[in-house]
Amino acid sequence: MPERILANIMLDRFLAEDFVTLRETCAIAQPPDVADAFAYFEAPEVLSMLMALDEDARIEIYPHMTEELQAQVAELMPPAELARLFSELYSDDRADIYRDLSEEKQQEVMHLLAATEREDLRRLGSYPEGSCGSEMTSDYMSLPPNISTSQAIARIRAEAPDKETIYYCYVVDKSRRLVGMVTLRDLILAHPERLVGDIMNPDVMHVDVNEDQETATRLIRRYDLIAVPVTDPNKTLVGIITHDDALDIVEQEHTEDLEKFMAIAGEHEAGAYLRTSVLQHFRNRVGWILGLAALGLVSGYIVQSFEGLLVQFAVLATFMPMLADSGGNTGSQSATLVIRAMALGEVKPRHALTIISKEFLIAAPLGILLGLFAMGRVFAFYGADGPAGGASPLMVGATVAIALLCQVVTATLIGALLPLGAARLKLDPAVIASPALTTIVDISGLLIFFTTAKMMLA
Amino acid sequence: MPERILANIMLDRFLAEDFVTLRETCAIAQPPDVADAFAYFEAPEVLSMLMALDEDARIEIYPHMTEELQAQVAELMPPAELARLFSELYSDDRADIYRDLSEEKQQEVMHLLAATEREDLRRLGSYPEGSCGSEMTSDYMSLPPNISTSQAIARIRAEAPDKETIYYCYVVDKSRRLVGMVTLRDLILAHPERLVGDIMNPDVMHVDVNEDQETATRLIRRYDLIAVPVTDPNKTLVGIITHDDALDIVEQEHTEDLEKFMAIAGEHEAGAYLRTSVLQHFRNRVGWILGLAALGLVSGYIVQSFEGLLVQFAVLATFMPMLADSGGNTGSQSATLVIRAMALGEVKPRHALTIISKEFLIAAPLGILLGLFAMGRVFAFYGADGPAGGASPLMVGATVAIALLCQVVTATLIGALLPLGAARLKLDPAVIASPALTTIVDISGLLIFFTTAKMMLA
Repeated sequence: MPERILANIMLDRFLAEDFVTLRETCAIAQPPDVADAFAYFEAPEVLSMLMALDEDARIEIYPHMTEELQAQVAELMPPAELARLFSELYSDDRADIYRDLSEEKQQEVMHLLAATEREDLRRLGSYPEGSCGSEMTSDYMSLPPNISTSQAIARIRAEAPDKETIYYCYVVDKSRRLVGMVTLRDLILAHPERLVGDIMNPDVMHVDVNEDQETATRLIRRYDLIAVPVTDPNKTLVGIITHDDALDIVEQEHTEDLEKFMAIAGEHEAGAYLRTSVLQHFRNRVGWILGLAALGLVSGYIVQSFEGLLVQFAVLATFMPMLADSGGNTGSQSATLVIRAMALGEVKPRHALTIISKEFLIAAPLGILLGLFAMGRVFAFYGADGPAGGASPLMVGATVAIALLCQVVTATLIGALLPLGAARLKLDPAVIASPALTTIVDISGLLIFFTTAKMMLA
Repeated sequence: MPERILANIMLDRFLAEDFVTLRETCAIAQPPDVADAFAYFEAPEVLSMLMALDEDARIEIYPHMTEELQAQVAELMPPAELARLFSELYSDDRADIYRDLSEEKQQEVMHLLAATEREDLRRLGSYPEGSCGSEMTSDYMSLPPNISTSQAIARIRAEAPDKETIYYCYVVDKSRRLVGMVTLRDLILAHPERLVGDIMNPDVMHVDVNEDQETATRLIRRYDLIAVPVTDPNKTLVGIITHDDALDIVEQEHTEDLEKFMAIAGEHEAGAYLRTSVLQHFRNRVGWILGLAALGLVSGYIVQSFEGLLVQFAVLATFMPMLADSGGNTGSQSATLVIRAMALGEVKPRHALTIISKEFLIAAPLGILLGLFAMGRVFAFYGADGPAGGASPLMVGATVAIALLCQVVTATLIGALLPLGAARLKLDPAVIASPALTTIVDISGLLIFFTTAKMMLA
């Protein structure tokens, strides 16, 4: 059912104070769809509707609401209600909401939580954003190695309702150090009397709590995992990151990388273009645009200082846009490919030499082709031996061709080298925004063009 | 163990013909790592090594090799061996490899397969690339509704080795129509005597076999699924797409979208920058670069036709690069945001009006700011009342400012509208390549600039 229709039905029943139908509607619909429909309401209305639902439905819907709405509703909730909601949520969702609360509300709700939940919340809240620790959940299934598989299944049966996944179970020793894993599949297939420690895989892939969340995503993708365990430096198991988190992380990182690459600053949720305010959109874009416009004036200054040359050889002006475009395009292409290959973990800074030689071999023929094309254009402009501001058309053509070749090769190499350099400086390669690159190679291109022209024609 | 070290050990043991150690090394390492190490060898060597491994290891490693190497090795394999490998692979991997074989090899191996496998291969091979049918596996777990949960678990235990996932089981009626699903979690938690049909969820999300694979990915992401069932138009269950496929699809689609957007044509595997040949890279880039260079000549032609104006008001040339840059940048930003929002399913063509008004409200103040900035630059150039080619500096400044405002608003709207238009024409919005957009707004920008100048100054 499309969210708009769902929202209409909900609004209708809400205004009629028909909470029975409202509850039933929300029970039939999928939780993410109900959460989307809530976006059409104000926070106090959402709160009343949520409170009219069964607790189970409430807990399933809540984490799917937008972060903003979650926080707004939480602020309005009586502390006791909020604490009850908190104790039912999965630990990673709880930590996310807690982080967005006002300090006052944080303290109110903290007092009302059980000690273990309080401890859990403090711990999850202490990891920096973007780390594995900040994305993990502590609702994982753990088993000791010295019980039988049938005992293990009995235990899973008892604990399943509180666990995010029971398909991967982690085996820990007495001090909760990760010593192995078994899948529910292994447990079901094994003889009921066998020990968990005997059938477990002792060689578990895991990530450190302080590592970048992308590391977890990469492991999940490469090894087709349902979850990856997160350990602290003592190899104590502290949480897991699940496959659905991995998909969300990938989409979020893609959006961020793409926006960074297209010179859009600031942060917003992935898939929230419509929900982001005009003011926020403006703020995210204005900085780069103004900065690049200022940089664009440098190009203007170069044009101006070679005015005499331009007046003498009017044909040169015809090729300025083509020169700038070709540089910007080839530079952006090589930057795109290198940044993407680094994001997928294929290319590392140590591959710099391979990449440079590869890009050179691609750029040189591209430059030559473009040069020949431009030369043909010069001849078409003058005829093969007409006058050309005191120089032969051949010389003008050669000037344009040589400048284009140099420009394309330079721009391609700059495009490939800047992200590699950023990575070497431990920066995200995507900070090399394509528009910045375009503006930089504009400047280098004009310098190359006019220097060549001065040497060959003046 | 890094793939390079692994490859060295493997090469060393291979040359020493020490197949025992080779086998043990491959057994300890993770299959995707061994597959990556194979990339350092030639196909005949890979074949000898694969044949020296246990069948189980071989089957796990093979699908992780690059598509190219898989095909090369398959071509070298004796048909009987290849048929044995095929019968052990998951059906989606098998179909992928089969598709890349030479026709001759396809026929050879087809004869040697069992009838059901042959049928399966034909069916999977018949769906167009990019459809759900082409990505699905037929190795799913299905159950009838009228058995007890304990009988269901016994059945799962028997069939598990051949299934890609047993965590989601699909309930089908006698004509194999999808009527519900149960998770292994549900089965384990339910009373052993209850019927599958009683505990199943009858309202299963599913995708049609001909739908775009992105639909499946979106469902998996939105509803945190481990797998999504694929049905034909009669609602008969024909396969499933699993969470790990979804991650691969997302990465592949993202790479394709990004490359399309940066005017890189052609196809190659995601994460294969280094493996793709220089010639292929050249081919993927040359078309757009030449096309855009030709389009760049149009800009050159416009510059040339307003030469007189430029000679009279030399200061105008100073602002040409800034005008082109600002248009390209603002246009690319809005295009990026709209394309990404469409890729995430947030924005649809019917949102066009909302988007246009939103982008206008963002672009107008951006344009005004840039205009004021440029006006300041004009005054700095001339002093507030110095001579300016016959016009007052105020008029020149106003010309630049008005042209910039018009340019930024136009470019932003073009950037937002082109992807929306592409979507309405049922094209992928990412075909609106950012470099093409930059070149287009270059042209519109120059026209705006010189027209404004002519009206205000001449």
